[in-house]
Amino acid sequence: MSTQSKPGQLMSAEIAEQPHAWSRFLADGLGPARQIAEKIREHQPRMVLLAARGTSDHAALYGKYLIETHLGIPAGLASPSVYTVYGAQQSLTDVLWITISQSGGSPDLVDSTRAAREQGALTIALTNSADSPLANAARFHLDVLAGPEQAVAATKSYTSQLLALWSLIDLVRGGDAHAARQMPDLGAMTLARDTGLSSLIDSYRFIDGLVLVARGYSYSTAREAALKIMETSYLAAQAFSGADLMHGPIAVLDGRLPVLAMVPAGPGGTAMTPVLERLHALGNHVTVVGEQTPFGPSIPVVRAPEDLAPLLQILPLQRLALGMSLARGINPDAPRGLAKLTRTT
Amino acid sequence: MSTQSKPGQLMSAEIAEQPHAWSRFLADGLGPARQIAEKIREHQPRMVLLAARGTSDHAALYGKYLIETHLGIPAGLASPSVYTVYGAQQSLTDVLWITISQSGGSPDLVDSTRAAREQGALTIALTNSADSPLANAARFHLDVLAGPEQAVAATKSYTSQLLALWSLIDLVRGGDAHAARQMPDLGAMTLARDTGLSSLIDSYRFIDGLVLVARGYSYSTAREAALKIMETSYLAAQAFSGADLMHGPIAVLDGRLPVLAMVPAGPGGTAMTPVLERLHALGNHVTVVGEQTPFGPSIPVVRAPEDLAPLLQILPLQRLALGMSLARGINPDAPRGLAKLTRTT
Repeated sequence: MSTQSKPGQLMSAEIAEQPHAWSRFLADGLGPARQIAEKIREHQPRMVLLAARGTSDHAALYGKYLIETHLGIPAGLASPSVYTVYGAQQSLTDVLWITISQSGGSPDLVDSTRAAREQGALTIALTNSADSPLANAARFHLDVLAGPEQAVAATKSYTSQLLALWSLIDLVRGGDAHAARQMPDLGAMTLARDTGLSSLIDSYRFIDGLVLVARGYSYSTAREAALKIMETSYLAAQAFSGADLMHGPIAVLDGRLPVLAMVPAGPGGTAMTPVLERLHALGNHVTVVGEQTPFGPSIPVVRAPEDLAPLLQILPLQRLALGMSLARGINPDAPRGLAKLTRTT
Repeated sequence: MSTQSKPGQLMSAEIAEQPHAWSRFLADGLGPARQIAEKIREHQPRMVLLAARGTSDHAALYGKYLIETHLGIPAGLASPSVYTVYGAQQSLTDVLWITISQSGGSPDLVDSTRAAREQGALTIALTNSADSPLANAARFHLDVLAGPEQAVAATKSYTSQLLALWSLIDLVRGGDAHAARQMPDLGAMTLARDTGLSSLIDSYRFIDGLVLVARGYSYSTAREAALKIMETSYLAAQAFSGADLMHGPIAVLDGRLPVLAMVPAGPGGTAMTPVLERLHALGNHVTVVGEQTPFGPSIPVVRAPEDLAPLLQILPLQRLALGMSLARGINPDAPRGLAKLTRTT
């Protein structure tokens, strides 16, 4: 699919398209989301399970934080193998089950969604493909409306998933998705302001690994950026929650591995202060994504409410992955070993 | 604490002690576990949340698979920051909340357990320290009885947590923890049979990174072994579920990073076959922990029921971490940047 185009052209175009894709969801997706939100309110779920793989799993992680914080309902990430490998039988009548998948085609997600529905859960599929096995397996389907995604490394489908989740959850709690309406403008401003990226790409030219760290909502950004860098630049990128990092993995950090830290405005960013202090004391080179801090250079991100900041934070990091990939002579539109649709069982 | 002893002496002794610690739990821990199991049955939880950090978080992951498969109750890993950073208010009256911690001292675990209890959850603390803030914060406390753990890298407290979780869950479903009674003998046999470890340590002498992969119950082993290697050998070790690996990170694997794959007897091991085939086709060097396969050399592990196999699988991997640490001139009893009790908020 990328044989006719310049390396990275697809990924670059899809990164740039994101604010436009968000506008499309806000115009055409909120109506369907409102109907599904009404069904969720009627169902009165006692808990939420989110099932996904790869990039979509990071959207699921974001959804988990949102659901617990905004809806006051406990949420967890489902392990599809419990159903597909071990054939677990559960009583899921109080459960809202949300499956997230760009293509809607991975067999383990389709099978575990079908099992959850049979076991009584209210099942909802969030996909970027209305006519997919997953959309048919779930009781309700919400199209994230990112438009056809061609690059193997998902970009616009990811942020459209975040936006669809935020909107759906806001509608469930009785909001009207008001705060999301500013996001296309803030996204365009963030993309227009990618200060410092090219020098960061230069300084990362010869690294073998990278550590990303965040807390709360932004932890999903760290995970997704790590995956994007692994997929496109073949680097061992690892993401940790700031708290988990302190419980062991920090031993790896002796100043030789660069660190990217997500610091949005808000409590999750503030909670990063002790982590940044510790990393600094151990002599690590930290680049901060978001706010200005005393702990290292920063990649600026336009300020947004913290629960919506992950839509913006990932934008310069997608460009970082793209730039690192090209600098290493890789075509990020067609990474080795990967296809656009991955089938796992 | 390790200044008087030979490097690695504490960790080595604590690895060897594990079968003995399991016998102690089976002798003295099942009585208290039975009482707590009775309280759980009375509470009739609709879901389970497990809260933990570091090594204990891998025991929590194991517990999640067990609970979903054996009890048919959905389970998730709690994000303490939802409570401690964002102050979420939830209705947790149907929830069983299990906090797992060696020391029982990390403030975020104590605070989130207290919040969960106030919000109606039945709270249980699994610790290796009866007199700890966490044991006091939770309604019930189960001592895993591993005995004092001195090495910073947790080993015996981890497998004692696994055994306590397996036993508690078996008692909740009406069992008598029968299958666990063979584990001290199987553990001693596995420790007596560490074939191939020294040549593996040699071949890993100069690596910078390592990938571990597993599915199902054994995914917790991959995660814990990666942490153990990070803590003691300062290597970028990454663990993936076999399915998640295929959805992106496999792009990193070009034969330069060694791979350790968990292959127990049972459905979780069988589900690894397509992953092993793919890794093999891409030219990766894979070492299999568990069963014999056509895909590479293996580290033998004595066979056990698959849901108990994680107690045994981790034993040679703890020794691998210890051996790699010593080969690199590091004292695994006192890794840089880490203390036995980590306080995160």
